Amino acid sequence: MISKLKEILIGPPLPTQELNEKRLNKLRALAAFSPDALSSIAYANQEIYLGLLLIGGVGLQLAWPIGLAISALLAVVALSYYQTLHGYPSGGGSYVVARDNLGRLAGLAAASALLLDYLLTSAVSLTSGVEAIASAIPFLWPYRVVIALFMLLILTLANLRGLKESGTLMALPVYLFLCTYLPMLAYGLLRLFIEGPAAPVTLPAPAQLSAPTWFLVMHAFATGCTALTGIEAISNGVPAFEPPEVKNAGRTLIVMALLMGVLFLGSIGLTQFLGVTAAAPETILSALARRVLGGGPFYLLIQFSTMSILAVAANTSFAGFPRLAAILAADGFLPRQFTGLGDRLVFQNGILALAAGTGLLIILFEGDTHLLIPLFAVGVFLAFTLSQAGMVLHWARLRGTNWLAKSAINGLGALTTLATLFIVGVSKFLEGAWITVFLIPLLVLILSRIHIHYRSVTRQLSLKGLPPSLKPAPPPRVVIPISGVHRGIISAVNYARSISQDVTAVYVALDPEAAQGVSETWQLWWPDVPLVIVPSPYRSIVGPLLEFLDRTDLEHNDGAQATVLLPEFIPANWWQALLHNQTAWLIKTALLYRRRNRGYQQVIIDVPYHLRR
Amino acid sequence: MISKLKEILIGPPLPTQELNEKRLNKLRALAAFSPDALSSIAYANQEIYLGLLLIGGVGLQLAWPIGLAISALLAVVALSYYQTLHGYPSGGGSYVVARDNLGRLAGLAAASALLLDYLLTSAVSLTSGVEAIASAIPFLWPYRVVIALFMLLILTLANLRGLKESGTLMALPVYLFLCTYLPMLAYGLLRLFIEGPAAPVTLPAPAQLSAPTWFLVMHAFATGCTALTGIEAISNGVPAFEPPEVKNAGRTLIVMALLMGVLFLGSIGLTQFLGVTAAAPETILSALARRVLGGGPFYLLIQFSTMSILAVAANTSFAGFPRLAAILAADGFLPRQFTGLGDRLVFQNGILALAAGTGLLIILFEGDTHLLIPLFAVGVFLAFTLSQAGMVLHWARLRGTNWLAKSAINGLGALTTLATLFIVGVSKFLEGAWITVFLIPLLVLILSRIHIHYRSVTRQLSLKGLPPSLKPAPPPRVVIPISGVHRGIISAVNYARSISQDVTAVYVALDPEAAQGVSETWQLWWPDVPLVIVPSPYRSIVGPLLEFLDRTDLEHNDGAQATVLLPEFIPANWWQALLHNQTAWLIKTALLYRRRNRGYQQVIIDVPYHLRR
Repeated sequence: MISKLKEILIGPPLPTQELNEKRLNKLRALAAFSPDALSSIAYANQEIYLGLLLIGGVGLQLAWPIGLAISALLAVVALSYYQTLHGYPSGGGSYVVARDNLGRLAGLAAASALLLDYLLTSAVSLTSGVEAIASAIPFLWPYRVVIALFMLLILTLANLRGLKESGTLMALPVYLFLCTYLPMLAYGLLRLFIEGPAAPVTLPAPAQLSAPTWFLVMHAFATGCTALTGIEAISNGVPAFEPPEVKNAGRTLIVMALLMGVLFLGSIGLTQFLGVTAAAPETILSALARRVLGGGPFYLLIQFSTMSILAVAANTSFAGFPRLAAILAADGFLPRQFTGLGDRLVFQNGILALAAGTGLLIILFEGDTHLLIPLFAVGVFLAFTLSQAGMVLHWARLRGTNWLAKSAINGLGALTTLATLFIVGVSKFLEGAWITVFLIPLLVLILSRIHIHYRSVTRQLSLKGLPPSLKPAPPPRVVIPISGVHRGIISAVNYARSISQDVTAVYVALDPEAAQGVSETWQLWWPDVPLVIVPSPYRSIVGPLLEFLDRTDLEHNDGAQATVLLPEFIPANWWQALLHNQTAWLIKTALLYRRRNRGYQQVIIDVPYHLRR
Repeated sequence: MISKLKEILIGPPLPTQELNEKRLNKLRALAAFSPDALSSIAYANQEIYLGLLLIGGVGLQLAWPIGLAISALLAVVALSYYQTLHGYPSGGGSYVVARDNLGRLAGLAAASALLLDYLLTSAVSLTSGVEAIASAIPFLWPYRVVIALFMLLILTLANLRGLKESGTLMALPVYLFLCTYLPMLAYGLLRLFIEGPAAPVTLPAPAQLSAPTWFLVMHAFATGCTALTGIEAISNGVPAFEPPEVKNAGRTLIVMALLMGVLFLGSIGLTQFLGVTAAAPETILSALARRVLGGGPFYLLIQFSTMSILAVAANTSFAGFPRLAAILAADGFLPRQFTGLGDRLVFQNGILALAAGTGLLIILFEGDTHLLIPLFAVGVFLAFTLSQAGMVLHWARLRGTNWLAKSAINGLGALTTLATLFIVGVSKFLEGAWITVFLIPLLVLILSRIHIHYRSVTRQLSLKGLPPSLKPAPPPRVVIPISGVHRGIISAVNYARSISQDVTAVYVALDPEAAQGVSETWQLWWPDVPLVIVPSPYRSIVGPLLEFLDRTDLEHNDGAQATVLLPEFIPANWWQALLHNQTAWLIKTALLYRRRNRGYQQVIIDVPYHLRR
């Protein structure tokens, strides 16, 4: 029944040979890799606005200069990644670049930062998308958590089915977004030109600033830097492009960066010069659209396309996280289960882990983008910095043409992102960045411990040094714990006698009178098999049984443990299992952990007896 | 480590022979059996007050007549139970009386009602106790749920240790309660005599009554009937008294009923005639005490003693519920596990079930006594009615001396409680009584289904009709699924060869190249054991393995299934298990449910290989 439900939800299994990826042309590649980057303006603008609002009306005038600063940063980072994709045409994710050039620790730090980022990207994109649509339909505002979780469920199921990020379905929202936003910005610019800039917004300054002005400005800049998230996607995905891969990827990156710049500067500039303000339940981007287009169908279309691209942006995490987890698992840093391609040829465990983490974040942070953002940027900029720093060494090591210039560009990128990382970390530390600062080293530690374990297991299982033929074992002594003489143990006793001449039954007696009866019936049925009655003054079954096994194993000097054969009866329905003492299960668990350090091994034989109803 | 913690919390195991009960003299017996009954005034008074408040100031004048009516009911019920304890000197719980005289269905109905009642008694007593103390210390009021849960935890641990209800610790709160309440009532009466009755409380009548006045009065009466809860305790516990048991128990019952009457009428009368009113966060009983004694240390002592006796009242559930559950389990109506005496000679599963249920009720109903009360009285009065009706038939059947008079008295009791049951059920149906009305038949159904299952299992396991000696089974064919050739499977192969000549290894190949390698290494180590490579185009391990087993079992015409021997490696730490595909576990689960209808049986052998770190 469960497998039936699974088939309806995610479709029938696919054979391994169907596994291959289609190459993308530039138009499709842009749609596949850019949603996260382009959609960042939704939350970056909102955060800059909320940050500056703390300073009051005067503060809002700083939006434009901050926007320019972030755009400059964008240009530097884009240039850096343009170089990265030339240096790593096989796909240079931050983990790979940092690991190859800076060593394992840096690689793990980058990997941890990326894992967290994927998680936060999907959470932030979903909550931000819900906020976009709830700005247009205010009665949805109180239900943001539920709606975000519902969208998460849809995304998860679609990805478990094996949704390809290169699919047309994914490309639509991106071009819808571009084809609505760019005209809106142009039309807004036209109106600004005709109507002239609005008077600066006058808001009563807060009676008491929550921090010095310079700190608040820095803080607004730091939160605005989330506009850069997603810019690294293309350099990770070079092999997915049609040949010439590197050239196509490079051009696509330039186009994407330009689009990001235009969208970001355009929206932030219009907001300031048209004097737009917003109050919850509405985002600043929604207020801008409403100001430019009025509240009609065009405005609704803009909000809908914002939500769609954010949903697709969340989906890029569903492509990236499982893939990174699989790479890490293949390198032995995450549980092996993440490498397993599921029925539908997707890394299903990675998808499920991401979905669980995202859901948890949405619930813990009550679906509020503003609360999630402080956790976000630290990881992004740590990964940027490590990746760029790695590229500096990469060029220096290769010493190819223009290696000095290339190193310098990536070095500039590394320094800029490092400075930003520092600003972000400090200015948002108390608001939540501390969580990320704490989690990344913790993750690095966990990844390392996992690696140590796998290496140790490989060593322990190695056959090296063992002689290729070992002496055969003697037939086992068999001990059968019984709960009484009934139909369920007949086949158990028969099986035991089919594999060994040395069979003993044991009955743990909670009640001496019952033991007498058991003993007599046993004599009738199996007079040739000895039955030992073990008293249990403390009413425990497992304790006296283990003592009996210990004692008899010591008496037999063949150095082997007796095999324990458990007659186990299996109820016809699952709920009936609740009605029986799970003694067989308790015994198995106790035996599993018995005397593990003595080099013995406890063989357990299960002989089931199926109840028919 | 877990067993260490357990020993600290609930103490070391006790041997079975320590199991015996001390007989109680009347003074100790009163303390043991009366807390539930005496403490009922805490919530009964409160409910009557809240109920009448719905009518307004005029309504509060009806408290005294309602109190008189309930006291009359109390006299009738007490008399009925006085007879019951003579009829069932071996302890006539409602379940036993109803089962013996009215048949199994009535018995199960009484049992279900009682199980729910025990649950509700402990929940209501705890929440009401917390309200008593939070009335005196108002800043505790918002934390009622947490405090109630904490008290529940203490009670649970104490009972798991094996707290005797007859202990001195349990007697103290009862006598403290009597020694503070009775003087307070006397002093209040003195003040009433000196000061004269207060003018009737004038409260603005509600603009619109929520229901007709007669309905509201009936409703107040119905909620007030919770004052009678616990009155049946003595008749259940006759064997615990010192001889002459019946005489002592009878006298104790009379004293208890008199005390109940005095406390109830005294407190409700004083409340009305002193014109006491209360508003949350305060109970009416607290307001009365404050009015009579002022807010000083005596008042605090009263509130503390109220809380203590309510805590002890909750504890009576911890004595009654597990015992009833054990009786029902021994009769085959509840899971057998409830009969098991734990390490400390207490019915630990019953205690844990009660604690879980109580905790759930406290959380679901937000620690609010007022919300829980409507669920409460239905079960109590159903049990009363069934028990009294059973006694009528009991006397009629025995035809002893005065059987007609005895029948008549119990008949009067049955009719009165039936009428009350009806009033309670109707007037509080929508407020929550429907839950009980729905749950009791559901419980009856569950108990019956469990009984049917146990009877069916007994039949299926019976050896009757089987010839006492069966033909020995041939040695098994053994199939070893392997995940590769490594140290973990050496002992598995050796063990297999020690019990059978017919051993086959199976490797499910997700990747044909890896399979080639496995096959070659295998040839080196065990050239004489065949290895079968099974391809798996859909990357499933379990599916192809089961198909292989099905196919080979069909090829062998001996009518037996192959034994599956699983080499399983056991990590050194629990967390390491997360890092390995639980393939062995998956295979076991799949085999357990394989072909269950064909009469075959799948024997599974576990050969563990312990990782050292």
